[in-house]
Amino acid sequence: MNIALLGFGFVGQGVWHILQSNREQLAMKLGLHETDVKLQVVGVRDCQKARDNGLPASIPVTDDIASILADPSIELVIEAIGGEYPAYQYIQDALVSGKHVVTANKEVIAKHQQALFQLAHDHRVILACEAAVGGSIPLIRSLRVGFAANKIQSVMGILNGTTNYMLTRMLADSMPYDAALKEAQALGFAEADPTMDVSGMDVAYKVIILAGVAFHVDISIDAIPVEGIESVQLADMLHAQDMGYVVKLIGAITATDHGLAVRVCPMLLPDTHAMASVSNEVNALFLHGDCVGDAMMVGKGAGGIPTASAILSDVVAIGASTSTPVSLKPAQLVPLGDQETAMYMRLSVQDHVGVLEQVTHVLSQAGVSLKTVIQKNQGDEASIILITHPVKESVIQGLQLNELAAVLRIDAMVRVV
Amino acid sequence: MNIALLGFGFVGQGVWHILQSNREQLAMKLGLHETDVKLQVVGVRDCQKARDNGLPASIPVTDDIASILADPSIELVIEAIGGEYPAYQYIQDALVSGKHVVTANKEVIAKHQQALFQLAHDHRVILACEAAVGGSIPLIRSLRVGFAANKIQSVMGILNGTTNYMLTRMLADSMPYDAALKEAQALGFAEADPTMDVSGMDVAYKVIILAGVAFHVDISIDAIPVEGIESVQLADMLHAQDMGYVVKLIGAITATDHGLAVRVCPMLLPDTHAMASVSNEVNALFLHGDCVGDAMMVGKGAGGIPTASAILSDVVAIGASTSTPVSLKPAQLVPLGDQETAMYMRLSVQDHVGVLEQVTHVLSQAGVSLKTVIQKNQGDEASIILITHPVKESVIQGLQLNELAAVLRIDAMVRVV
Repeated sequence: MNIALLGFGFVGQGVWHILQSNREQLAMKLGLHETDVKLQVVGVRDCQKARDNGLPASIPVTDDIASILADPSIELVIEAIGGEYPAYQYIQDALVSGKHVVTANKEVIAKHQQALFQLAHDHRVILACEAAVGGSIPLIRSLRVGFAANKIQSVMGILNGTTNYMLTRMLADSMPYDAALKEAQALGFAEADPTMDVSGMDVAYKVIILAGVAFHVDISIDAIPVEGIESVQLADMLHAQDMGYVVKLIGAITATDHGLAVRVCPMLLPDTHAMASVSNEVNALFLHGDCVGDAMMVGKGAGGIPTASAILSDVVAIGASTSTPVSLKPAQLVPLGDQETAMYMRLSVQDHVGVLEQVTHVLSQAGVSLKTVIQKNQGDEASIILITHPVKESVIQGLQLNELAAVLRIDAMVRVV
Repeated sequence: MNIALLGFGFVGQGVWHILQSNREQLAMKLGLHETDVKLQVVGVRDCQKARDNGLPASIPVTDDIASILADPSIELVIEAIGGEYPAYQYIQDALVSGKHVVTANKEVIAKHQQALFQLAHDHRVILACEAAVGGSIPLIRSLRVGFAANKIQSVMGILNGTTNYMLTRMLADSMPYDAALKEAQALGFAEADPTMDVSGMDVAYKVIILAGVAFHVDISIDAIPVEGIESVQLADMLHAQDMGYVVKLIGAITATDHGLAVRVCPMLLPDTHAMASVSNEVNALFLHGDCVGDAMMVGKGAGGIPTASAILSDVVAIGASTSTPVSLKPAQLVPLGDQETAMYMRLSVQDHVGVLEQVTHVLSQAGVSLKTVIQKNQGDEASIILITHPVKESVIQGLQLNELAAVLRIDAMVRVV
């Protein structure tokens, strides 16, 4: 499979990085030999900058994108430029030239999905955009195939990593909005101009794409009520916390008897909601289907490598001739005795002075250190309840605590994650 | 697409139910006309029983499975019989006859995956088993495609609905093991002979299938250390809770420098772990990939309809000629004013007697009822913080609380999920 990559920013670099480090893995999934997964050319605006950013001399680079799109040996184009223009034109040209296109470009897809998917269909190629929504999480494929048998009744997501990071930081460190934004910018989570993220517009694009996949409708960006997080105040986050809620920027589509209720706005989410603990730059989608009930997917929503992972999942889906692995290797397994976990233990012991010391002595002699110990007395007996630090299973099995006269029974041993 | 269904128990009935109720949806995903998605015949041991269980006279039923497998008009066989024999033989025969096979049969796949996938490959058909692990959650497809670019470093799951239900009930109602088992049996979550579930063997089969998809290895069932939940005691669940843990039956595979560490056993999971709140019959898979970091998928792990949803996702994946939707309809949207949500409000008011009453009077006149109200005094001013019950947005926007002399400012309005 001959691949061209357009753009060599964070996402393009991520694609190159994974193509290098996991080439064997990708080739196997594609049913190809390693040498047949080939990044043939990189198209950028500034060739020198791409070299400075680590593109090796062995990969041709050009600023003549038209030459790439006209090259009949290129089978698949990865568009990692971003923004509406000229990316939209490049995607159209690639499809018309009979090339598959994989893109992370939410703006182009949200604004032009109807025309682009029709174009792909007309030219018998595939346009895929898993990376455009939810970063590394396979949301699009799950809605399109995994939940294909369902009438989807609602989807609701935390779909922007930057704002979720900022809201997390505001609450965790009682930090006002401006300080959280500055920190997010310093860490590279927010751009110098953060408008697209904090205004909710980024989420609105993603909601349009989700509506296409989950409800088979096209929504105009102007038709969505969009509120960002600019007006979220720390005081309200703290009041909400007192009342058992957490504030998140939510994109939601709900099927009602009167049509789809669509919104993008900050919302109070009950602490008990499955998405309430989705923090920092993590994204999540919560959906309800008529067959599956509630389901949720959680994962990294931003970053060059996670986004590139989603892009390459589309490449695999397009390229794989069959989805069934043919040859499994025999597994090389670690024997249970050599596996390491922490261990919870409950012992019944005689209620004497010094018993706890005897038990901990046996453990420390074996090199087992303790995270937690509780002793509870009940009549003539006492319970010692402890959790060790991670240790080889064989060490735990060889402890012979039974041989201590004061140990009456080992009541329970349960491993700890 | 001409489909034959083998078996008409809970899962088979679920397949039939969804084929009926969501036929339009399925046909669209398959790019077919509704009448071209056709359940041609049902094969069972007892034809009368299938009729008694709701199979209509319009669908032919037979106990001559061989005649189905020999029928060249059948393109795809759904195997929903369960158990190793005769299901294994039927699957082999179907593949050899050039039919695609979709199955939920974890035992057959776990024991024979290498041979069966080879057979499918040799006969240029697809064998798919999304429903065999994690019920309705698209785990297999996500590992095979969505995370295809990753070296998977670990997968860890709550993969058995019956035992997760029992453990949830034990803790919630301080119920001993035997009582929880009886309740699960009464509710249909556990079978009369619950050995397969409570012994951990069901999870072990699923772990073998996950190892094939995520690590491309074949593991023998005898090589996996398996412990079930029979020995889990309520006392230890309560001690664990005190220490900030919850007990779950876990199937886990971790890549180490010495090979794969594989285990099935009850484990203490920290309360802060993303899977700690996965309760009742819900399943989850938590994974770590080198590109995506942590990711999690959560959904119903058991039941006829959720399992059938996964089976039909495989049917869609096999049948869909292209994964791109061509024609999106324009969306019928609910205007924001007509959308209903609960609303959080914070008002700054004069610190007088009767102000709270004035505010609540305005709300109740508009038909807005309150879930929570807090008043906090600060010097000359007070804050009123309230959460309403769900109400139309237009009602909230029309409240005119500003017109009350005692209301100084509306500081915040945030919608509530």
